[in-house]
Amino acid sequence: MSFEPMQGVYLSADFDLKKEFGAAFAQLSGDIRIDRPSEIEDAEKVRFAICWKPGPGTFDTYPNLGFAAAVGAGVDSLLGHPGLPPDLPVCRVRDPDQALQMAGYVAHEILHLERDFPLMEANARKRIWAPPALRAPSEVRVAILGHGSMGEAVVRAVHVLGFSVVVACRSTPKSPISGVKYHSGPNSILQAASGADYLVNVLPLTNETRDILDRRIFDQMARGGHLIQIGRGEHMPEADLIAALEAGQLSGATLDVFRSEPLATDHPFWSEPRLRLTPHVASTATPRVVAEQILCSAQELRDGLPLSFAIDRVRGY
Amino acid sequence: MSFEPMQGVYLSADFDLKKEFGAAFAQLSGDIRIDRPSEIEDAEKVRFAICWKPGPGTFDTYPNLGFAAAVGAGVDSLLGHPGLPPDLPVCRVRDPDQALQMAGYVAHEILHLERDFPLMEANARKRIWAPPALRAPSEVRVAILGHGSMGEAVVRAVHVLGFSVVVACRSTPKSPISGVKYHSGPNSILQAASGADYLVNVLPLTNETRDILDRRIFDQMARGGHLIQIGRGEHMPEADLIAALEAGQLSGATLDVFRSEPLATDHPFWSEPRLRLTPHVASTATPRVVAEQILCSAQELRDGLPLSFAIDRVRGY
Repeated sequence: MSFEPMQGVYLSADFDLKKEFGAAFAQLSGDIRIDRPSEIEDAEKVRFAICWKPGPGTFDTYPNLGFAAAVGAGVDSLLGHPGLPPDLPVCRVRDPDQALQMAGYVAHEILHLERDFPLMEANARKRIWAPPALRAPSEVRVAILGHGSMGEAVVRAVHVLGFSVVVACRSTPKSPISGVKYHSGPNSILQAASGADYLVNVLPLTNETRDILDRRIFDQMARGGHLIQIGRGEHMPEADLIAALEAGQLSGATLDVFRSEPLATDHPFWSEPRLRLTPHVASTATPRVVAEQILCSAQELRDGLPLSFAIDRVRGY
Repeated sequence: MSFEPMQGVYLSADFDLKKEFGAAFAQLSGDIRIDRPSEIEDAEKVRFAICWKPGPGTFDTYPNLGFAAAVGAGVDSLLGHPGLPPDLPVCRVRDPDQALQMAGYVAHEILHLERDFPLMEANARKRIWAPPALRAPSEVRVAILGHGSMGEAVVRAVHVLGFSVVVACRSTPKSPISGVKYHSGPNSILQAASGADYLVNVLPLTNETRDILDRRIFDQMARGGHLIQIGRGEHMPEADLIAALEAGQLSGATLDVFRSEPLATDHPFWSEPRLRLTPHVASTATPRVVAEQILCSAQELRDGLPLSFAIDRVRGY
């Protein structure tokens, strides 16, 4: 039994991960240590990497890595790193709070628009008492693309609020929610989008889902529908969104993710009144949960156990 | 067996109920007829009344009423009518859509403030990318006063979004939700309010609950908490709210109901920036459901059955 602490490294080109996560790791355990590359004495002793957009060439330095961990739910940028060793296990975070935050963000956007809060807020500033008409929630059709830990929490919340929920998922869930309609298979996304008043994207970004939010999907929706985009910016060709807005097929969209973040000050999205823009806040993993789960992976690696938080590298999530 | 249609009357001092509900009743059945007082030929044949704030003296005209029905969930104004015969059964609407609308309104308000949407909307207008900090939903304490059909739907929605829910209810529910804390008994409201970041009022208005949202309850909440008031205006002494805002004990309040509606143009609430005001829209019963349930009561009356939608006149709801 070895009492030497297990060594990890923070890898990021432009972000001080130790500043963000160091305290959370320190609170949990004394038998691992994690340092910045400049603080590592013996690169061969480094057994795992904690990553947020690592710079080029960074993985070559550490020949004995047992896994690379992303600090969030999405591993697309890590998997896209050209230096990532092809057989290295990749771990992600599965934070139940993060899934609930996603659900809250989506619920807010649907309710905000469906219940005419922007109009009511403008009326209140003018001292106008004018109740907008209400639809029964069951008359409102919400399509949710993606049914991982995030999508599932979103489905549960939107369903509890009484909206009609249609889901596009890889495979029909073992415990489906009664009243929710699930589509799987090659046409599931177009089928789910059909007639949707609100379309929510919580898909992971993979080669199959890149640029998937295109004109064809918008055309399936109910005329005047609204897009809620909380996946990745690379899911959506921007020109297709603008075209759908200009054609009136979409009445608006809520965008939390962008092809380049932060969104550039001169990006035309900022001046489009039909867009609601938020700065990638639909969810964030809490440092405590990130630290707990990466520590769990480190212990599994040390004990020769399968890595619970590893993703399927072929599938891409 | 009689084939003569059963006669009802619309009773309202200032609202054309036939215009609002006539079509919905017409779609359901031909064996009842409901008219305005001016259209009634024989007042003795009128067996039930559909009411929205009836004028003075209106009940005296109809000696053979079997029930009076409110067109919504709240029966407080009907019970407060001085001419209501003391033994006349009073029916209310129990619209599941209305309960879901209440839940949606509350979920929106909590999420809107908790997730800093007002700040993000202001930032977006200025092209500022500045993600606000996020709390884990479980760290946010929501107190819900009232656990009837409305309150229960609100509890379910707020719980599914991951917030910590504490409920004040008349009696502990038969099927409590795991993780939700229920208080019943004489101090339940103060106990539930204790430490609340958000306090939601969905109580019915009765002699016991009139003016209940007072300074004492606000003082129990977490400092800087927020009130969501969707009960009745008469639940809250307005001066106590203003005092709690000025003392900083409440950071704000969302008000959907008022002691006098529509809220007068010169009411000071309109100019208080810490208040979010909506024009009594947390829910409305859909005409179809109102018609179905009153028709059900009429059939039960005809068949000599107990009235499923009757309220307890002593309890007041």
